[in-house]
Amino acid sequence: MIKAAVLGATGYTGLELVRLLNAHPGVEPAYLSSESHAGKMFSEIHPQFQGQVELVLGQMQVEQIPKSIDIVFCALPHGKSAGVVSALLKKDFRVIDLSADFRLKKPELYREWYDLEHPDPSLLGRAVYGLPELYKDEIAAAQLIANPGCYPTSILLALAPLLKTKMIDGNRIIIDAKSGVSGAGRTPKQPFHFPDCTENFKAYRVAEHQHTPEIEQELSRIAGGEIQVTFVPHLVPMIRGILSTIYLEPLESKTEKELNELYAGFYTDSDFVRVLEGPVLPETRFVRGSNYCDLALKLDRRTGRLVIISAIDNLVKGASGQAVQNMNIMLGLPEETGLGQTAI
Amino acid sequence: MIKAAVLGATGYTGLELVRLLNAHPGVEPAYLSSESHAGKMFSEIHPQFQGQVELVLGQMQVEQIPKSIDIVFCALPHGKSAGVVSALLKKDFRVIDLSADFRLKKPELYREWYDLEHPDPSLLGRAVYGLPELYKDEIAAAQLIANPGCYPTSILLALAPLLKTKMIDGNRIIIDAKSGVSGAGRTPKQPFHFPDCTENFKAYRVAEHQHTPEIEQELSRIAGGEIQVTFVPHLVPMIRGILSTIYLEPLESKTEKELNELYAGFYTDSDFVRVLEGPVLPETRFVRGSNYCDLALKLDRRTGRLVIISAIDNLVKGASGQAVQNMNIMLGLPEETGLGQTAI
Amino acid sequence: MIKAAVLGATGYTGLELVRLLNAHPGVEPAYLSSESHAGKMFSEIHPQFQGQVELVLGQMQVEQIPKSIDIVFCALPHGKSAGVVSALLKKDFRVIDLSADFRLKKPELYREWYDLEHPDPSLLGRAVYGLPELYKDEIAAAQLIANPGCYPTSILLALAPLLKTKMIDGNRIIIDAKSGVSGAGRTPKQPFHFPDCTENFKAYRVAEHQHTPEIEQELSRIAGGEIQVTFVPHLVPMIRGILSTIYLEPLESKTEKELNELYAGFYTDSDFVRVLEGPVLPETRFVRGSNYCDLALKLDRRTGRLVIISAIDNLVKGASGQAVQNMNIMLGLPEETGLGQTAI
Amino acid sequence: MIKAAVLGATGYTGLELVRLLNAHPGVEPAYLSSESHAGKMFSEIHPQFQGQVELVLGQMQVEQIPKSIDIVFCALPHGKSAGVVSALLKKDFRVIDLSADFRLKKPELYREWYDLEHPDPSLLGRAVYGLPELYKDEIAAAQLIANPGCYPTSILLALAPLLKTKMIDGNRIIIDAKSGVSGAGRTPKQPFHFPDCTENFKAYRVAEHQHTPEIEQELSRIAGGEIQVTFVPHLVPMIRGILSTIYLEPLESKTEKELNELYAGFYTDSDFVRVLEGPVLPETRFVRGSNYCDLALKLDRRTGRLVIISAIDNLVKGASGQAVQNMNIMLGLPEETGLGQTAI
Repeated sequence: MIKAAVLGATGYTGLELVRLLNAHPGVEPAYLSSESHAGKMFSEIHPQFQGQVELVLGQMQVEQIPKSIDIVFCALPHGKSAGVVSALLKKDFRVIDLSADFRLKKPELYREWYDLEHPDPSLLGRAVYGLPELYKDEIAAAQLIANPGCYPTSILLALAPLLKTKMIDGNRIIIDAKSGVSGAGRTPKQPFHFPDCTENFKAYRVAEHQHTPEIEQELSRIAGGEIQVTFVPHLVPMIRGILSTIYLEPLESKTEKELNELYAGFYTDSDFVRVLEGPVLPETRFVRGSNYCDLALKLDRRTGRLVIISAIDNLVKGASGQAVQNMNIMLGLPEETGLGQTAI
Repeated sequence: MIKAAVLGATGYTGLELVRLLNAHPGVEPAYLSSESHAGKMFSEIHPQFQGQVELVLGQMQVEQIPKSIDIVFCALPHGKSAGVVSALLKKDFRVIDLSADFRLKKPELYREWYDLEHPDPSLLGRAVYGLPELYKDEIAAAQLIANPGCYPTSILLALAPLLKTKMIDGNRIIIDAKSGVSGAGRTPKQPFHFPDCTENFKAYRVAEHQHTPEIEQELSRIAGGEIQVTFVPHLVPMIRGILSTIYLEPLESKTEKELNELYAGFYTDSDFVRVLEGPVLPETRFVRGSNYCDLALKLDRRTGRLVIISAIDNLVKGASGQAVQNMNIMLGLPEETGLGQTAI
Repeated sequence: MIKAAVLGATGYTGLELVRLLNAHPGVEPAYLSSESHAGKMFSEIHPQFQGQVELVLGQMQVEQIPKSIDIVFCALPHGKSAGVVSALLKKDFRVIDLSADFRLKKPELYREWYDLEHPDPSLLGRAVYGLPELYKDEIAAAQLIANPGCYPTSILLALAPLLKTKMIDGNRIIIDAKSGVSGAGRTPKQPFHFPDCTENFKAYRVAEHQHTPEIEQELSRIAGGEIQVTFVPHLVPMIRGILSTIYLEPLESKTEKELNELYAGFYTDSDFVRVLEGPVLPETRFVRGSNYCDLALKLDRRTGRLVIISAIDNLVKGASGQAVQNMNIMLGLPEETGLGQTAI
Repeated sequence: MIKAAVLGATGYTGLELVRLLNAHPGVEPAYLSSESHAGKMFSEIHPQFQGQVELVLGQMQVEQIPKSIDIVFCALPHGKSAGVVSALLKKDFRVIDLSADFRLKKPELYREWYDLEHPDPSLLGRAVYGLPELYKDEIAAAQLIANPGCYPTSILLALAPLLKTKMIDGNRIIIDAKSGVSGAGRTPKQPFHFPDCTENFKAYRVAEHQHTPEIEQELSRIAGGEIQVTFVPHLVPMIRGILSTIYLEPLESKTEKELNELYAGFYTDSDFVRVLEGPVLPETRFVRGSNYCDLALKLDRRTGRLVIISAIDNLVKGASGQAVQNMNIMLGLPEETGLGQTAI
């Protein structure tokens, strides 16, 4: 069995990693760390793991991670991850980092969007952006994976086929995205306090969300040219799920059938992207707990605009499931190993 | 006390009308009808009204409505309302119709969007579109009010000041709207069955929703020229509330401050429209159970686009509250009488 | 207009007090304080009040409360209230305290159940327990009201008629109570973080909840003899509402009809207690946002046990609504003034 | 691969069976039937199965089930199942029936509690009650399994150790149970319509629920003597989960530690029953999507009563997971095969 470490195992992405790794036939969670609960049993803090994962939570110190670990998942908060990852790489660990700390290529973007002076900008060039549907070969060879953000995953998979083929106006992309509350992390805060959060819907960080530069960097790379988007996220009173509604101006006239064929072809080798045809549209419950990204393409026949709907589970394809998919590729396992769960 | 009738009193908009009329200092609910529960006590079907409203539910027959009724609210399903309203007008009742049956001016739009042959197209011209912030004088004099749809209310109030002043491109309006489940009515259906509906988010009728022609008709009227929009509604797992996120291309460069002043001026006499400034954005909970429409204007500094967020309670300002507001105007009462509820 | 002060106006019971007082025809909220937000506009912190209540939040210092205030509501956390109330009484204010600090008569119970040394035990005897359905005359004359807890309110109203008439075994009372999350207050904590709280149900403080001595003290007083109960509270993923299911051993054999008559008679002058007959049972939504307590009595024909279901809105009849009801009585207003809201 | 049929595959327990069987390493769903959707692709009706289960839905006719099927799961509504099962047995299929149609031993109980004349009472004696923790050997040899009800499962596992050892008063058992909404099935009805169901809590069928005779029959069998209980179910606004709170009168004085040891011993070979010790209590989220039953035992030190909390996922351990567990035993597979999911 391959041995995996999860640093920051008691946050939502950490918990989801342990859940998925525990169900994986070829890997076992072998080292878990937690800053706040070090020394306690993991299953004491999270009783759903009783009888399943019986490990003592270790410290975050890199020196304490056993040499026998084959792969390290870093599920630490943004800003905290960079230093830890730097130390891990020096110890020759292969690392999948779920924070934003290695996703952006330009250090100044961390200053601008994360209010963060990046401690090790030289590593930014070494990190491979872990979107397996686009960068499988680079992922296989990487020592450091920057696991994509949840919103960016839902958006990049929705737009890649059109941008590659230059079929849409890259400067008229409007993204209206909606996320479940687990996307905000496990630390209690007022806006996520149940009575303030349930039975409520709101937009937040309108055109100012920190995922914007990641979305634009990666869309630009796919398109081969500068792309700027308007991106507005919203908070949905549900635990899991992201649904992005994307408004586009086509440069050529295509039917929905032609567009569906384009997408089916583009993702023909990608088990986890499903293009829904016919009347069914993506709903977050169809991907809840699974690693799928569901897409649908709808033409507004009256205005000629194209609307794409994209749905993922933010904790699975938007974080920990994608991280396991990256791990499979890095370790030479079939990409979908341990990720076959049907939505619940 | 003014006497009001509510036809279709056991649906969600009917119930909300009875709740609001019961709290109104100058009006009393005096006749309630229900097709499915005629003959039973209203408070037996809806026990929250025990000790508050003790009326037997009448038949829907127009002949049974007492002459002493001063105003009739018609809260019947689309398609069913037109015939009843026609009969009510012949009996000289003043009518506020909450269905879509009198909102559109062109009969062919009913065929196209509602799959409905309108039974009395001659009445379409007589109906006054009941958006008090824009058409107060016509409402005061009307015999028949077409009470606006929930989505249109949230959108028209958000866009009127900009369209009147021709400050935005009328053909590049994109509306991404999200509604609570009560907007779908009280009849149980699979998509609104609790386990299929909670913990889920989805788009529906993408660029095909039947409110589209109402939105375009009224936006065009405000702008003084043809307007076509892209309108995509979504379903939020909450009972009440609509939040519309509207993406616009400004024709002139204005600051957020200037825009806020424009809106504050435009709505200076409108108690129920609140323009939120500073960092606070509209959330549906701030208007839950109240007759407010909350607006915020945000510039995307990078792309120059303007984003407007608009929130209402779909059952109050989006339906029954607005109907009571129209009634107040028709009866010469202060517009806000009985509508002072703070959000709950 | 009578002038009311609300100390601790930004917690859930404080907010609910301001909402109810603002809707009250004879009273106005005239002074609001907040420890954490002093100096800011109340409506800036809680935008639902924009255009409704425009007051600057004051400090908690008793000296700052204007002499013109007629009644002070103290909505401070348990333990914090006692000292403030003590100072208020010295200044001759009439006070309704919504905390637990004056509900228990024996100071040692504060030590045992609240881990609190009561700072002014001499006041315990002066406080009147503010359950208007039982103690209206004492309330009218009181300077200090100890407003009942939410669970106790739902339980005392359910049991009073049977205990007064000695029709049940006082030592075989089992209370299984369920509360919405607002009962836990507005401070964010892990168990109430939306993703940990929604889609979940649990018991807590099993047979150890701090409302137990209040329940027993007041049941004993009604029964005229010592009563001990088993009380187990649970957390329901909803904002508002308490439903208590109470299991009893009758000492005499009565039919449901006889029991309903007993209750109807007992509460004949109490507008806010509704005894539901026939097949309808209490549901928390029938009292949501209203000051009602709904009761139903069901005999288990096979075992002879009696089951009582009791539903209230924990923030209204279980806290702020009951406080306003007490205020009305203290000020000589009709008891139900400003409390006529139908459930929403 | 063993081939399984699921009759009634599009209800909630049917869907859950397909999900679990699809994840099972030794079994595959090979025949699915649906009365309402026969002829359509299963994954068209339930898009979460796209790319996972691509089968055409068959008719319910027993003749159409291929001979190659090794085991048949019958997930039909109560009353509909009996006839189908009867036909299946004649064809020598091994059957696990998830309805109530074979759980009760006395035909007259079907008349009394289900308003149903049982069509084949002779089969009642042949059916084995499929609670693996108690009846493993009989299950292994059975041709027909009556899969236990959701409420009974949570209650029987909670009480078996105490009843076997005669440590509690069998005639003073009070069960206050709470269930998520999926327990009511997938057919839309008014009480489960989202706006009527969310933000609400209620009791239903107080002391009259049809699971009562099943609970009593099985408790009596375990205890070796007649037992009558008071059983009151409630509806929780969540999709999945049952939490039962059970109030007991001990016949001998034991500490919580001794009770925990008794339970740990009793369930030492039962992987799916977890006895939680220390301060953690069962919560439905700890078992969501998993086959566990979590238990905790708490003494009310003041009254001497014992309170047991029991949590399961009603669709897994309360239905389809338990059915798969029964199948594993019938087929000689390790009991936990395909059921190792951690709660999600």
